[in-house]
Amino acid sequence: MILKPSMRSQVLPMPVVLISTVSKDGVRNAAPWGCIMPILRPLDEIAIASWLKRDTLDNIRDTGEFVVNVPTVEMAEAVDICAKSFPPEVDEFEEAGLLPHPSAKVAPPGIDGCIAWMECELVEEILRERFSLIIGKVVCLEGNDAFFDDGGGMDYEKARPMSMILGPDGVCYTHPARGNR
Amino acid sequence: MILKPSMRSQVLPMPVVLISTVSKDGVRNAAPWGCIMPILRPLDEIAIASWLKRDTLDNIRDTGEFVVNVPTVEMAEAVDICAKSFPPEVDEFEEAGLLPHPSAKVAPPGIDGCIAWMECELVEEILRERFSLIIGKVVCLEGNDAFFDDGGGMDYEKARPMSMILGPDGVCYTHPARGNR
Repeated sequence: MILKPSMRSQVLPMPVVLISTVSKDGVRNAAPWGCIMPILRPLDEIAIASWLKRDTLDNIRDTGEFVVNVPTVEMAEAVDICAKSFPPEVDEFEEAGLLPHPSAKVAPPGIDGCIAWMECELVEEILRERFSLIIGKVVCLEGNDAFFDDGGGMDYEKARPMSMILGPDGVCYTHPARGNR
Repeated sequence: MILKPSMRSQVLPMPVVLISTVSKDGVRNAAPWGCIMPILRPLDEIAIASWLKRDTLDNIRDTGEFVVNVPTVEMAEAVDICAKSFPPEVDEFEEAGLLPHPSAKVAPPGIDGCIAWMECELVEEILRERFSLIIGKVVCLEGNDAFFDDGGGMDYEKARPMSMILGPDGVCYTHPARGNR
């Protein structure tokens, strides 16, 4: 079956993260993000793709910092609230009932209850006509003690990190289940 | 728990795809890839991150074409074989027992039995000191009829697209399970 090329998000499961930033005026922002990838193990960089008009992008440009929060699939309601369009002066932590998780090396707080927090500094922005690629360096990575063993392995069947597949009717939230081995 | 920044692949589930290419001498290559993201819905672009020395990267540079194949989690053995390092003159389809799936708009074949095939043309390479970002445009997207309904929705519980989380002992292959809703 031939699908439209833009439907490629319906054939590829992607993680869902919440990116938290703070505006230059100090307003907290939290936005769901599906276009994210680590740049090669064992490097420290990640890449995200952004539309050109996003409070998150403005905040990263203004402050050079952001936190990639890995939510559990149980946080779907808060993620849905953060996906709504709020004016830049609205604190999205308050709108979505999110509590801050203190960051160690960057100003934006993480989000309480998440599985892991990647504190990032902006390395560069690669600006194109219709999108922007943000390259960030992970300067501090914290895992929630509730979900990681002493060796740093995630109990993903307990943590249930949020992923998604787009369907014709919208987003299907999923979480990883163990493969055959 | 503070983790090393390079362990960010242990906190984020990522899809696993097989990228198929053909060298300028006509040798078929298939390589597993975890660093991939769509660039924003409803655009047609995708991004992949590559090490600088990879047959896949050489082939994309030489031919401007590649296919992103979405494997099922049952294809783990073939994926593991493709992950080994073969000389560029070795046909990795033959090594891994993969059969070609005909492409409509690009020269490299897809891989038979996959869930979906994204035929891509190189848009640009963003070369950095330690990695390269390849931006591709999906010129033809095909879904396997066995896994998609008439509206283009994937039955992901049947298809079981391969994802992964890295653990301290290596790769854990996973597939998406339905979230709470």
